[in-house]
Amino acid sequence: MASRSTQILEAAARVIARRGVRGLRVEELAAEAGVSTALIYYHFKDRTGVLRQTLEFISDRAERYTAGRAPGDPPLTPREELEGALLLELQDTAEVRENSSAWGELRASAVFDEVLREDLARATLDWVQEVAALLGRVVPMAPASSLASSAERLTALLEGLSMRWLSGGVRLHHARDLLLGAVDAELSALRQG
Amino acid sequence: MASRSTQILEAAARVIARRGVRGLRVEELAAEAGVSTALIYYHFKDRTGVLRQTLEFISDRAERYTAGRAPGDPPLTPREELEGALLLELQDTAEVRENSSAWGELRASAVFDEVLREDLARATLDWVQEVAALLGRVVPMAPASSLASSAERLTALLEGLSMRWLSGGVRLHHARDLLLGAVDAELSALRQG
Repeated sequence: MASRSTQILEAAARVIARRGVRGLRVEELAAEAGVSTALIYYHFKDRTGVLRQTLEFISDRAERYTAGRAPGDPPLTPREELEGALLLELQDTAEVRENSSAWGELRASAVFDEVLREDLARATLDWVQEVAALLGRVVPMAPASSLASSAERLTALLEGLSMRWLSGGVRLHHARDLLLGAVDAELSALRQG
Repeated sequence: MASRSTQILEAAARVIARRGVRGLRVEELAAEAGVSTALIYYHFKDRTGVLRQTLEFISDRAERYTAGRAPGDPPLTPREELEGALLLELQDTAEVRENSSAWGELRASAVFDEVLREDLARATLDWVQEVAALLGRVVPMAPASSLASSAERLTALLEGLSMRWLSGGVRLHHARDLLLGAVDAELSALRQG
């Protein structure tokens, strides 16, 4: 069973995905989570504390998305692992939609409000380094700086495509194809040095 | 001198860039623009009318960004034109910051609210086709569908990088380098068919 603080963070992610960061008021969060406002202040100190912990919660949750592979499936090649890890963010499930909407909102809110910038930068860096590691398994001879740049581009593209998909500007299948095309182009460039 | 409706749209872009789409109330817009609410309703019918016209205003304004070229400068190569057109969106000027922040907010609001989706899709398509035309001048033998896919990727990447830059996640100079790297990778892929 989820702890009380996890229950509050789950509710916060739902509220942000539905109504945006500005729509998150502690009173409404308490109602959504079915707890008292006092408990929220006890666990997170203030609204900023809630936002920072929700950002971390959302990043962690994205790392646990599954691609629906069965235990007996053959092992993936490094390239399949890379593509799979990126495509996990472009899946039409309630969890991915909610998580990506909330992430986009937290990112957008940092344009106006400096409080989340450092946490966002840290979460983005973790993600970039994870993708750079996967790219390095596909093209081990590529310099680390080139792998990092490719990873920055692929993750920024994924954020851009994800927002287009969630805002109805591109179909999911097409967004996935566009992303795979970028993986192709980046891998060719890495191989050519 | 700007017409009254342009004056209102300029104020709307400022308000959205500063406080987000949800922060745009007709009363506050009237105060910011220095006009009566009646005049806003007269020109735009309702708040949705304001949002739709502001989106168009922002798209048009982005097309008029200049790269500070003097009349006597030598003509650009097709590749320089392509890179120049994309890099215009990553400039540290008040106008670009305001325009890009407002665009990001309008895009994010369409995740929750369907009303802007069609206008956003139209503005995005215009932009994609313009970039595809510039790509086609660099690689005229590439199929139109490949040019369109490259243009979709480059513009989605630009949106992603722009949000990272505006939210403090990446330095401007580095965002520009990452974008130029993507242009390189896309052009190589287009040339190899």
